[in-house]
Amino acid sequence: MLYDLVVKNRTYRRFDESVHISEQQLLEWVNLVRYSASGANLQSLKYIISIEKEKNEKIFSTLGWAAYLKDWYGPVEGERPSAYIVQLLDTTIATNFFCDDGIAMQSILLAAVEAGFGGCIFRTINRQLLIEQLQIPEEYQVVNVIALGKPIEKVVIDEIKDGDVKYWRDNKGVHHVPKRSLDEIILKI
Amino acid sequence: MLYDLVVKNRTYRRFDESVHISEQQLLEWVNLVRYSASGANLQSLKYIISIEKEKNEKIFSTLGWAAYLKDWYGPVEGERPSAYIVQLLDTTIATNFFCDDGIAMQSILLAAVEAGFGGCIFRTINRQLLIEQLQIPEEYQVVNVIALGKPIEKVVIDEIKDGDVKYWRDNKGVHHVPKRSLDEIILKI
Repeated sequence: MLYDLVVKNRTYRRFDESVHISEQQLLEWVNLVRYSASGANLQSLKYIISIEKEKNEKIFSTLGWAAYLKDWYGPVEGERPSAYIVQLLDTTIATNFFCDDGIAMQSILLAAVEAGFGGCIFRTINRQLLIEQLQIPEEYQVVNVIALGKPIEKVVIDEIKDGDVKYWRDNKGVHHVPKRSLDEIILKI
Repeated sequence: MLYDLVVKNRTYRRFDESVHISEQQLLEWVNLVRYSASGANLQSLKYIISIEKEKNEKIFSTLGWAAYLKDWYGPVEGERPSAYIVQLLDTTIATNFFCDDGIAMQSILLAAVEAGFGGCIFRTINRQLLIEQLQIPEEYQVVNVIALGKPIEKVVIDEIKDGDVKYWRDNKGVHHVPKRSLDEIILKI
């Protein structure tokens, strides 16, 4: 059921880097984007995939990890993502992508989870550095990056307390994410 | 499999309005948003649900239907959506929602499709009219509307030709949506 997949699709930031993701697998996940809704059907988003160590390292160096975990600067070697998908706006098609980016990423991440993997969406990206590192042509704008791998961390959902949305990691390394109740997100009017 | 669900999740604009969607069902779908990724975990989006005829009519009157179908102004009575979900930004939480809107809507729509329904995302909304019609408090901004129902139209995906992204309806009422190939959306660098 979709419910189980959505619940299992947590934001994972530590992976077993020794577990490879194939190019074929990544392409299958990105293929789902073609079947996902696109504002005015423009389909202005395009994708770079990465599974090679050197390319992965270049992308890794541009990402801002877990803003709320002040003493943690991202996964150590061996726990880094095995693959990345860079989402780009093709400005030769349009200057806008409406809400296509989130729709596409949810399709990709749910597919990754179904296949036993997991990932993390990044918007905190050193975009200029990423453009330089991957030599992305100037007609493309970096929108988001998805890091993917075999998760090795436990992520649990807690009830929100006093409106504090900050996620945190306990002394056993379990990652806690406070979520608003259904009651709180439904406006009764 | 997720693939089947994503492929089945087309943008539907004509429904069997006599098929009811329960409040409980809508709440289950919106509940998936709580388990979907949120930028900085802010969870700044909130939702109004509608299943009542009068409220549905108010929402319907604010929506812009299928911009590319020039001679069609939206579904006739009897073929209109049975339910709506209005997605709002709660500006008392944040002024931003990153890409949460698309992520959330994809979760909702996939759940609706799994349950035998389908829908359509609207960004072309007379927002001021919707705010007035539903008396939405001023701290909320209208982000998107999802219309939901039991689809009665056939939607097929075609290969794109000459870069023309416009969807169209053939003389049998089948809705055609041209999609870019996987090859076209992958940047090989």
